Amino acid sequence: MAWWKVSSAGKDVNPDLAIERESPSFNVETLINILHGGAEETRLRRSVVTTIQKDPVFSLEDLYFKTRAERYEGAIRNAFHLKKKFKEFGWEDNGPEVIHAYRALSGEYALNIHNVFTQSLNALGTDQQIAKWLPLATNYQILGTYAQTELGHGTYLRGLETTATFDPKTQEFIVDTPNITATKWWPGDLGKTCTHALVLAQLHSMGKKYGMHPFIVPVRSLKDHSPLPGITVGDIGPKMSFDQVDNGYLMMRNIRIPKENMLSRFSEVLPDGSYVKRGSDQINYFTMISVRVSMIGNEVVDSLKKACTIAVRYSAVRRQSELKPRAQEAKILDYQTQQQKLLPLLATCYSIHFMATYVAAVYNKVFKEIRVENFSSLAELHAITSGIKAFATEICSNGVEVCRKACGGHGYSLYSGLPTLYTRVVASCTYEGENTVLHLQVARFLIKCFAAAQSGKPLPQTTSYLSTRLSSGCQANTHLDFLNPDVYMKAYESRAYRLIASAANKLHRLVQSGTEQYEAWNNTSVELVKASIAHIHYLTVKTFTSAVSTLSTQPEIKTVLKRLCDLYALHGIFTSAGDFLQHGYLSGKQLELATTAYLGLLAELRKDAVLLVDAFDYSDQQLISALGTYDGNVYHNLLEWSQRNPDIKKVSPVFEKYLKPYLQSNQSKL
Amino acid sequence: MAWWKVSSAGKDVNPDLAIERESPSFNVETLINILHGGAEETRLRRSVVTTIQKDPVFSLEDLYFKTRAERYEGAIRNAFHLKKKFKEFGWEDNGPEVIHAYRALSGEYALNIHNVFTQSLNALGTDQQIAKWLPLATNYQILGTYAQTELGHGTYLRGLETTATFDPKTQEFIVDTPNITATKWWPGDLGKTCTHALVLAQLHSMGKKYGMHPFIVPVRSLKDHSPLPGITVGDIGPKMSFDQVDNGYLMMRNIRIPKENMLSRFSEVLPDGSYVKRGSDQINYFTMISVRVSMIGNEVVDSLKKACTIAVRYSAVRRQSELKPRAQEAKILDYQTQQQKLLPLLATCYSIHFMATYVAAVYNKVFKEIRVENFSSLAELHAITSGIKAFATEICSNGVEVCRKACGGHGYSLYSGLPTLYTRVVASCTYEGENTVLHLQVARFLIKCFAAAQSGKPLPQTTSYLSTRLSSGCQANTHLDFLNPDVYMKAYESRAYRLIASAANKLHRLVQSGTEQYEAWNNTSVELVKASIAHIHYLTVKTFTSAVSTLSTQPEIKTVLKRLCDLYALHGIFTSAGDFLQHGYLSGKQLELATTAYLGLLAELRKDAVLLVDAFDYSDQQLISALGTYDGNVYHNLLEWSQRNPDIKKVSPVFEKYLKPYLQSNQSKL
Repeated sequence: MAWWKVSSAGKDVNPDLAIERESPSFNVETLINILHGGAEETRLRRSVVTTIQKDPVFSLEDLYFKTRAERYEGAIRNAFHLKKKFKEFGWEDNGPEVIHAYRALSGEYALNIHNVFTQSLNALGTDQQIAKWLPLATNYQILGTYAQTELGHGTYLRGLETTATFDPKTQEFIVDTPNITATKWWPGDLGKTCTHALVLAQLHSMGKKYGMHPFIVPVRSLKDHSPLPGITVGDIGPKMSFDQVDNGYLMMRNIRIPKENMLSRFSEVLPDGSYVKRGSDQINYFTMISVRVSMIGNEVVDSLKKACTIAVRYSAVRRQSELKPRAQEAKILDYQTQQQKLLPLLATCYSIHFMATYVAAVYNKVFKEIRVENFSSLAELHAITSGIKAFATEICSNGVEVCRKACGGHGYSLYSGLPTLYTRVVASCTYEGENTVLHLQVARFLIKCFAAAQSGKPLPQTTSYLSTRLSSGCQANTHLDFLNPDVYMKAYESRAYRLIASAANKLHRLVQSGTEQYEAWNNTSVELVKASIAHIHYLTVKTFTSAVSTLSTQPEIKTVLKRLCDLYALHGIFTSAGDFLQHGYLSGKQLELATTAYLGLLAELRKDAVLLVDAFDYSDQQLISALGTYDGNVYHNLLEWSQRNPDIKKVSPVFEKYLKPYLQSNQSKL
Repeated sequence: MAWWKVSSAGKDVNPDLAIERESPSFNVETLINILHGGAEETRLRRSVVTTIQKDPVFSLEDLYFKTRAERYEGAIRNAFHLKKKFKEFGWEDNGPEVIHAYRALSGEYALNIHNVFTQSLNALGTDQQIAKWLPLATNYQILGTYAQTELGHGTYLRGLETTATFDPKTQEFIVDTPNITATKWWPGDLGKTCTHALVLAQLHSMGKKYGMHPFIVPVRSLKDHSPLPGITVGDIGPKMSFDQVDNGYLMMRNIRIPKENMLSRFSEVLPDGSYVKRGSDQINYFTMISVRVSMIGNEVVDSLKKACTIAVRYSAVRRQSELKPRAQEAKILDYQTQQQKLLPLLATCYSIHFMATYVAAVYNKVFKEIRVENFSSLAELHAITSGIKAFATEICSNGVEVCRKACGGHGYSLYSGLPTLYTRVVASCTYEGENTVLHLQVARFLIKCFAAAQSGKPLPQTTSYLSTRLSSGCQANTHLDFLNPDVYMKAYESRAYRLIASAANKLHRLVQSGTEQYEAWNNTSVELVKASIAHIHYLTVKTFTSAVSTLSTQPEIKTVLKRLCDLYALHGIFTSAGDFLQHGYLSGKQLELATTAYLGLLAELRKDAVLLVDAFDYSDQQLISALGTYDGNVYHNLLEWSQRNPDIKKVSPVFEKYLKPYLQSNQSKL
């Protein structure tokens, strides 16, 4: 194929991309260190990523050509190989290397839920139970899953139907799936892998019900891996993504397990069948919160960062149409409409990044308090983490899809990496708490805070603006005023305040006029969700603003981060203009000024766009994208990957079977 | 598995769904006839759908378990089998049965682009060329594709690099791929199927360039289907969807084709190499427009209708959480937040449905005019079709994804049918004209119309509001006023007018102050796109309103359609509130009234939601959804489909290879 020079292409950085890096307005390496915890941490991360990626067993090459079965087997292979490597390198299970290693594998590993099993065991088991089960789990002598969700029941835990009934005669629990809707559904590692399940079931003893409790149920033989008697278990089938994960279903027909298999740190059934509750299980609540904290900082914002890296680099290389008459076709990144798609998302990456750092800090603080039985900040932490989970998963998954579409036709090819990023990250809108449900939980907290503010009670820090006196309107007179963080912060504060107040007032009005409380709540829920979004949006702007202002670094970096923060804030005003206008905080004229400032920032940030995605510091192997490689040789990549498709080496049966009789029915005319 | 009674479930309609149909407020069959062109047409459609679906060759069962290779082979099989069936039943190639037959197969057939090849041949070939090639193509003695897009070039036709150079010595064209970026990329049926390609190439003759022209290039042997000398051809690999289509790439190394292979209805190269242009090729332009017209009325709105059918039925069956304390868990359709997700989309289906009908009528009218060389309405038709393509593909694909997410975890399973609907329909945002590019074309038309209005010239009908005097503000005083179509129509008119005027003024101002025209355009393009969207949005509201008001049918049906129209319009005001507030057309207080009216409609339309999706009249086989079946037995379906997964019958190699050594390393503790 030498004639079109594929082989000679792709060696150097595409000049269209090289020029973007030629005279950087700031030091990219410095920004990398800011984003990734310092120079030492960056060095460690890069060394782990390189170690993983140069191991041929972990190769992600040809990922897009693999079947579901191959992906699953590859994920299992990687999990077991990783275990060996950890031992070999002396990386500890909770050491800093482990998270880097996992992220280097871009999700292609199994036994994630086995880890949840282990964590839950640690949190919910007695010391004795931990001593028995933990070493087995840690050494993969048993493989576990966490089985909560049922075919007919998700978010609402009290609705779960699986039962565990104590039999005092034999000192056993009888675990049962009483109905088709009680089938456990979704647990990862359950479909084809695990040997044990941590089953959440309604505890019954001596004719009384005690609600959800955790039980360890053996499901597969350790000898030949076949389902144990009374167990029906299998894979739930293909999903929008996560081909590598064997999400499964599980039915249990009056399975008997020993009494010791109920995890009993917080409650126990005594031999006579009586029930004892002990200690506070509020700490238990914490597992869910910790999962949300870590998912935002990891896979959720990671997906958007990767998508922006791919789309921005491609947009600096792809040329399309005349912008200036009779000039060379322009880079698509030079079109304002393309900037408007990508640059606010780039700013969003930074915003959610700083928010995730902030939330992790709050989490650690509250965790310490709870250790000494101080639960005073738990409600606020719960609201922040629920809200940011719902907000970030929505904005990041929508953003990935905008990036994908912004790459035109090539964004639709799996080779771009973008379809996979999207179909995977969008699941996060649903798992770990459905977003609308979470926003309504935040709203419940906000309504309480608003009521407290009205009666002069002190408020948690993140809602303290509800007890301050609001300024009646924005003071901005020129578009430059909108580059002042005080100006836009006040606008966000006012928007959140007014939406919360308006929902609270409607609720109050409905109840006053005789509507039942639950009905009033339901009839206000659209507005309550809006209020929650406005509150979290405000928190993200606030966190970004304060992260920038407290940063001690080179002024060039502060300048560019300040611009990103401004862009993030003004883009929100531009796209949710109604909220800012409705109660008169902004005038129509001021919105016009904000728009001018916003569009001006697009042009300014355009220059730094490639550098700002380079600072996310992904290796080509992590991006798995023909469009996003550091060298920008996109067309070379696309063509080369097509040639690698194993499919083209197979003879298609279609010609002989279908085409030939027609094609050869009348050759005389050709 | 009798114990959990799978077999006895799923025979009757789920009572939760049955009750929704028990006392309908209107006759569903009448509405079906209104939507589908009358009772006779409904009868024909159902009979074709049944005929196709009872043929076992066409079975779509187990579709979600199939590999890419199996999907492709199935699509080829269906295309050839369909050909036989058409003959057998005497259905004509352009007869009414054909489109119903295709739609019954839900996209699982090949040779779509072969049909584009045939149509293009008909449009661009001389009578002689048509006489030669058409019978071959019609009888599948050759299989064609249409090769326009290149690896490095999409929308911008002048940028295409493939060349066709006339050689007067041999009376041949030399077709060449001069560069890697000139590789033809994307054509359907090219990857593994076609024998000929209609190649768009830059014509060179006697050292002069004449722009893009169409050439028929043989690419594969009719004898053994191998690529012909000098041809490199193959499949471009996996995509976000469309596994059944073999999109391909094509490189041509100085391929010689006879002079007669240039399609020459509108231009010809004479034997001496001189170039002759003849007739108007504006009619050619029309192919693109006709594709857009038909795609909106078919696959685009179809996808949203199917998604709404699935999500609404599921939401009437799925129960989640207590709404009323101590009552049974509520149907999720009873939550206002769920209504807010689904019902405006249901209204959107109807809106785009009526818009598609309107656009098809305009198209037919203009087509007749053009036949008699009257091109006066072409620019307006182009603007309407470009705009509605961009508007409807965006709103419908986003809507499908909202429906998917509204089904929670089960919406993420391929069994729901929703992931496939989404990943397929979202491609329409990119193909047949990228949406942002199309909106900017509409904007160019609007800016011209605005200028014409300013100088008192007559305007095309769809933009006539640009020359009327605008009322200064909305007159509504109560929320009921917003159920008056005149009130919301004027609001939409005003919004479109003001956004167009504001973009036009900015353009003017920039040019006046010395900015170059092209730069002024680029710097206004974000606002120009907004103006185009507002204009098309206005047209959809207008069309819906007038479709409802001119309908002669039972008053109950008019009532429910009027409600849908109101909901569609008010939802747009609620979600794009900033546009309506910014220039003061609506006050904040009025927006509140509009919101009250909007939320009230959600509760009213909730009652008819299931009936309104039933009226789309899809068979279960067309929906291919475990969640969307007419009988609502969703859990039964999910479990049954999981059991059908061929994967679970295979022995996984994972146990022996990876798990066993660990699981059996220390059995003493268990």
